[in-house]
Amino acid sequence: MRGGPPHTRELLRICGLAAVQAVVDCDPGRVERLFFEARLKPAVGQFCRALGQAHKPFREVDAAELARVAGTVLHGGIVAITRPQPLLPFDPAAARRWAQQRKLLVILDGVGNPHNLGAVARSAAFFGVAALLLADRPDQALPSDASYRVAEGGLERLTLYRVRLPAALRLLKRDYRVLGTDAVRGDPPPPIGDRPAALILGSEEHGLARATLAACDAVVRIPGSGQVQSLNVAAAAAILLYLLARP
Amino acid sequence: MRGGPPHTRELLRICGLAAVQAVVDCDPGRVERLFFEARLKPAVGQFCRALGQAHKPFREVDAAELARVAGTVLHGGIVAITRPQPLLPFDPAAARRWAQQRKLLVILDGVGNPHNLGAVARSAAFFGVAALLLADRPDQALPSDASYRVAEGGLERLTLYRVRLPAALRLLKRDYRVLGTDAVRGDPPPPIGDRPAALILGSEEHGLARATLAACDAVVRIPGSGQVQSLNVAAAAAILLYLLARP
Repeated sequence: MRGGPPHTRELLRICGLAAVQAVVDCDPGRVERLFFEARLKPAVGQFCRALGQAHKPFREVDAAELARVAGTVLHGGIVAITRPQPLLPFDPAAARRWAQQRKLLVILDGVGNPHNLGAVARSAAFFGVAALLLADRPDQALPSDASYRVAEGGLERLTLYRVRLPAALRLLKRDYRVLGTDAVRGDPPPPIGDRPAALILGSEEHGLARATLAACDAVVRIPGSGQVQSLNVAAAAAILLYLLARP
Repeated sequence: MRGGPPHTRELLRICGLAAVQAVVDCDPGRVERLFFEARLKPAVGQFCRALGQAHKPFREVDAAELARVAGTVLHGGIVAITRPQPLLPFDPAAARRWAQQRKLLVILDGVGNPHNLGAVARSAAFFGVAALLLADRPDQALPSDASYRVAEGGLERLTLYRVRLPAALRLLKRDYRVLGTDAVRGDPPPPIGDRPAALILGSEEHGLARATLAACDAVVRIPGSGQVQSLNVAAAAAILLYLLARP
């Protein structure tokens, strides 16, 4: 038996109160174990009651042990050992329902840095995006410990899909304005249109794949001063989601 | 003799081609030594000629040695050992000149994470901000190896100051619209005004200091869906700088 990809086999270490709060709120059954420092005791009573009812262990530990459990000192005093979020095959019917609610989608086409994945997820959840679609290519980051830490709960608020590009874009275009991004070519960010946007962000080094760019309804570029080559992909995502999500 | 603060005493390890390119372009005399992997040889010829003329060492090394020199595997194949950028005392006359050129300022009041400092610097340079003013408080991050790596050359394009808040704001208000930010209270981002903006970003956990908020001309908030508590400070900075810097 091959087993699934690493993403579906391994347990995640979700660090930080906001990220742990989000998994307990959204999908408490995924939490397997919880560790926290004494200073967070007042904040975790509700989590511990829920875990106790599910016969799952929770434990107060010192900072050194928590760093060992977390694999980082950037644990914010709490770590939940958690089964990963499901990474679903693309569902055009769900996408159509979200379009009717005028919800945005975000598509990542080769964003390789797991911190950037987490940062995009945090902004996407902040602006009410429904789902995050991850391109099925080897250089696309999948949610990792670092992604969850940076997302501060944002990943839990999004439905996650794995999609084949550009095939999925042809289906999405019935209901969404498919907006590619490019650091060099492209038009200024457009006003909000009739269809909600499906915003595609590309690799930190190479941008969107050529076939993805060709399948977009429009390609946008954020104009800058020229003093640095480009915006970080998560900064570009924040700006474009702000512009596209405004009521 | 006490010596300066760590920031002025220690050498930085500036990683990544964009960040190294920026220091070589802006202030080559600060580079003390350069290390790079063979794969970057075509890109570094110009750097090596400049260093050779200044009798400073440069050397091709393998990936393992570069990781040791860099203190991280996230070195992008090149590391420059560099004296830090000067961190100047606040200069109201320079601020006034930039205001006449309608250049923006960014002020950090307790941004503690050096990655966030680097991310804000990258976006600030992208949008043509003139200077980054760092509050003189112990929890304000100063530029570190991680900041330079994340800034991808952005820090080199900015003049860096250390300022006392809120005192400096009273001087800036003659020429700038001093805009505070808050995750909870505040108005929607305002249109571009008569005076250029001096945008203040606060601590990741606690926001702006109360005295800073009280000294602002206006306090802005980016409205969200409520699904996650707040935007990352660098994401908020990117959105507001985009709105405030547009020609």
